[in-house]
Amino acid sequence: MLSAHYVGQKTIEIRTSTSVPPGEGEVQIAVAYVGICGTDLHILHGAMDQRITHSGIIGHEMSGTIAAVGPGVDGWADGDAVTVMPLAWDGTCPACLAGHSHICQNLDFIGIDSTGALQEYWNVPASTLVRLPKGMSLAHAALVEPVAVAAHDVRRSGLTAGDKALIIGGGPIGVLIATVAREAGAEVRLFELDPQRRAAAEALGIEVADPRTPDAADAIETWTGGAGADVVFEVSGSAAAVLTATSFVKVRGTLVIVAIHPQPRPIDLHRVFWRELTIVGARVYEREDFERAASLLARGVIPADALITETVPLGETANAFATLENGRAMKVLVDVRAPSLSRSGGPTCAERPGPAAG
Amino acid sequence: MLSAHYVGQKTIEIRTSTSVPPGEGEVQIAVAYVGICGTDLHILHGAMDQRITHSGIIGHEMSGTIAAVGPGVDGWADGDAVTVMPLAWDGTCPACLAGHSHICQNLDFIGIDSTGALQEYWNVPASTLVRLPKGMSLAHAALVEPVAVAAHDVRRSGLTAGDKALIIGGGPIGVLIATVAREAGAEVRLFELDPQRRAAAEALGIEVADPRTPDAADAIETWTGGAGADVVFEVSGSAAAVLTATSFVKVRGTLVIVAIHPQPRPIDLHRVFWRELTIVGARVYEREDFERAASLLARGVIPADALITETVPLGETANAFATLENGRAMKVLVDVRAPSLSRSGGPTCAERPGPAAG
Repeated sequence: MLSAHYVGQKTIEIRTSTSVPPGEGEVQIAVAYVGICGTDLHILHGAMDQRITHSGIIGHEMSGTIAAVGPGVDGWADGDAVTVMPLAWDGTCPACLAGHSHICQNLDFIGIDSTGALQEYWNVPASTLVRLPKGMSLAHAALVEPVAVAAHDVRRSGLTAGDKALIIGGGPIGVLIATVAREAGAEVRLFELDPQRRAAAEALGIEVADPRTPDAADAIETWTGGAGADVVFEVSGSAAAVLTATSFVKVRGTLVIVAIHPQPRPIDLHRVFWRELTIVGARVYEREDFERAASLLARGVIPADALITETVPLGETANAFATLENGRAMKVLVDVRAPSLSRSGGPTCAERPGPAAG
Repeated sequence: MLSAHYVGQKTIEIRTSTSVPPGEGEVQIAVAYVGICGTDLHILHGAMDQRITHSGIIGHEMSGTIAAVGPGVDGWADGDAVTVMPLAWDGTCPACLAGHSHICQNLDFIGIDSTGALQEYWNVPASTLVRLPKGMSLAHAALVEPVAVAAHDVRRSGLTAGDKALIIGGGPIGVLIATVAREAGAEVRLFELDPQRRAAAEALGIEVADPRTPDAADAIETWTGGAGADVVFEVSGSAAAVLTATSFVKVRGTLVIVAIHPQPRPIDLHRVFWRELTIVGARVYEREDFERAASLLARGVIPADALITETVPLGETANAFATLENGRAMKVLVDVRAPSLSRSGGPTCAERPGPAAG
């Protein structure tokens, strides 16, 4: 089988190997699509090398069908359409014992800390499987993971119908949060610096502004009747955004930290104190977020076709990273079942509809 | 009557004037004791001059007895022992309409934004009065306001019995938070740099550490079984404390921002994200905090006598500020009813028991 490996030096190598049968408690998935996300790009850049101690096969946004069921696995059969919630916890740390196993203190994020989905056949613990709704496109299903992130972020925010939510950062997760928040009954606004991303979000019916324009802050004040937003999502990762984010939150409102900030960021703690704000971190998801995400995608709430801006065959995984790196793509998928033509590094596949889930 | 005025240039002046009768909806209080706090010290230093647009009479931690009841006031009588919850809200801003009038967007903090208690007779809206429990010392009652701050901070933290709470900063508010949290059933630890303050807290039975010692962080890890504290209170106002505070909080735990940080502070947002922490701002109090504070003091839960390190007569208010400024006092009270000897700047009164409340 073919697999894509991060081998250091900002390099992805395509290799051939023989698949191994699933072990006790595992299933083997014939992978269909793998989405490439910002974290994967960080890995390519070498920023997470201390966590890549395995073969270098990464990828954790995916869909596929079960190809083989290992010993001791019940409830799953060959051909079942699935995605994977890529978390494995130890079940014994204080976080797990307190019921927060999704952020276990020794979490194995499958596809980062252990082998991921950028291979034709992927063995995973059956406990990580999430069944796809009948008839769901496998290409769309590769978005379940990032949609689950957005669903978790919205749930952590405590947002309720009628709330006003400002999302700072209009990349894939920002747009997904806007979509999920809107579905939950919130009015949403999005701040994004990049004009192409603004246009993409506007095309999805999201009200978008450039936060550098002089009246952007005033517009939030006017929109919220002088109160400030009920919820602000910081999805940009920018220090400047963090510093101003608190100014947009209403008294007793909530700022959700979604983006990864590798460095400590200055925060206006006087504003946090003055308005009794709440800041919450939101990381990955729980199973209910995954199931909600699958449902949102199956019901067409998520504009999946608009978000998937490019699909490339497995052999051209490096191109998927390059496309993402230029910052203009929303979501790039790797089609793991694409024709072998791609193995020689041929031209990028045009987007094509995926097969429907069983 | 005598009154103490902040007149700029780090100067307190004692002046004589004639008291005026209470207006519609007001009562006149014969002030007994006024506590001087860190905010008052900030005012003396000129840091809040834009808010001192009145006579310069400040002071908002106090006790007294009603001397006269104005027109339209029911339920209060001459001689009633009272304290004042020094907040006046507009009732019309978005925060008030949402039920958060204690942090009204146009809050009048009485004693800062309008005339305070450092005068023999003080007229206040009857709506701000809080009745003191029978038999309560008026000196102790001057602590109701700072204890209400601590009660509010603990309530905002969501702390419950059995929780482990770390308080960073062992000034009066830090020690009060430790005391209130302990009363709520929490195990508490206190970090404090100053050896004299550490000794004072230890004398109250609080387990205290110097956060600069190499094993201070390990001790928290051991104490919490590797989990981290359920709640951390940042009461120090120090940038270094803020930067490390997140490292002491358990997965899904809470950091409460109690101190005033005039400048934006670097915060480890990666930790906030990674552990899904919550950071909450806590400012002033609501009436239930005031009533709880009065009850805690009346029941002897708060070590009021140990906390009141000095009492000076009104005529020596400047000395109270000087004592506070040297950083070694816990709580300094101004005795507004002290003998006129003090008017000439005589020696500091020794602490003396106050009259009991009616």
